[in-house]
Amino acid sequence: MTRTRFHEELEELKGKLLRMAGLAEQAVDRAVAAYAARDPRQCELVFAGEPAINACEREIDEVALDLLAMQQPMAVDLRFILAVIKINADLERVGDQAVNIVQRVQAMLETAGGELPVDVPVMGQTASKMIHNALQAFVFADAASAEQVLTMDDEVDRMNREIEARMLDVIQKNPAAGHQALETLLIARNLERVADHATNIAEDVIFWLRGADVRHGGSHTAMR
Amino acid sequence: MTRTRFHEELEELKGKLLRMAGLAEQAVDRAVAAYAARDPRQCELVFAGEPAINACEREIDEVALDLLAMQQPMAVDLRFILAVIKINADLERVGDQAVNIVQRVQAMLETAGGELPVDVPVMGQTASKMIHNALQAFVFADAASAEQVLTMDDEVDRMNREIEARMLDVIQKNPAAGHQALETLLIARNLERVADHATNIAEDVIFWLRGADVRHGGSHTAMR
Repeated sequence: MTRTRFHEELEELKGKLLRMAGLAEQAVDRAVAAYAARDPRQCELVFAGEPAINACEREIDEVALDLLAMQQPMAVDLRFILAVIKINADLERVGDQAVNIVQRVQAMLETAGGELPVDVPVMGQTASKMIHNALQAFVFADAASAEQVLTMDDEVDRMNREIEARMLDVIQKNPAAGHQALETLLIARNLERVADHATNIAEDVIFWLRGADVRHGGSHTAMR
Repeated sequence: MTRTRFHEELEELKGKLLRMAGLAEQAVDRAVAAYAARDPRQCELVFAGEPAINACEREIDEVALDLLAMQQPMAVDLRFILAVIKINADLERVGDQAVNIVQRVQAMLETAGGELPVDVPVMGQTASKMIHNALQAFVFADAASAEQVLTMDDEVDRMNREIEARMLDVIQKNPAAGHQALETLLIARNLERVADHATNIAEDVIFWLRGADVRHGGSHTAMR
């Protein structure tokens, strides 16, 4: 394989990772919609989408391994492939969180509900946006955007603490709503984990760019 | 670097990963001890130990990258290095969970406590053992042990559901113990995440061995 061909393959790998990220983001968005509308069909969509995410993960790992095996990549390309492998693992776990959320939504459908004083959808949208922005940072080799994701994580942590406090209050004052409130609290924790994965991805981007920057001054991807 | 020297370096990498795993396991054990005795000193030990875990993670990643860059490794060795990189990331997050647990224990120290009807230490020991066994499976290239870790994960999930139900009950019937019970419930979730990381590690071991087995019939590590 020529070096040009090798770099084309790296671009294809990046494309596959973006597709994987799109599936993971979609799963989170659907899970949040499932919660907001207590919608069993949205739950089914998330379950039905999981095998594709898992298949994507395996495919990306195999391609990454093949590229590593193909020729002796330069250090900057190694760091790129390493970042892909790590981001890939995080995205697969984002998909797991979405599945976890809709399992909880299904449990909620079995008990009587009522309005709870929390805005889970806003928290979900923020977490989903973090995934999106972290991947954008990766695609555009943009360390500043990656740093922004870390800031958004503080906001999600704040929302999570707020939901935790409010749901504890509901559980104590209105035991009949206890089950719904606990599931909601745990769904918020799932979303907080999605945000954690986005943070991990952003950190991997920064690690990759810093290494690329410091050691080699950039290679197949434009550096800022 | 000769191929013999290369395989010596792989063994050294494995040794570093084992040291990392030891630190992560120790952090979990200390966090569980901190919870059991509500012991602020054990909390401090976990906080003090975190930088070493993070430093270990970076060192392992760098060595893995250097080995990838050094020469054209055979596919079986690539899969081994890939497994190290993934296991390394999981171990670092196990350390994060331990920190998270002792942060909750510190919060519990500020409010009045009492005996709660749950056995968090047993759950913690099981999660910690899963990490240990998953690493043993890696060291001895033992797929059967890795499979056992997956079975233990079901047991931890069961314990987690039981603690969740009991703590919800406490929160509803005894609001004064609500804060302690909620922290306990969330500590159980942290331990469930530790078990998830052990499961991920076991799956990486199986993936590595299967690839090694199916494709190449083994290389620098004895296969069973």
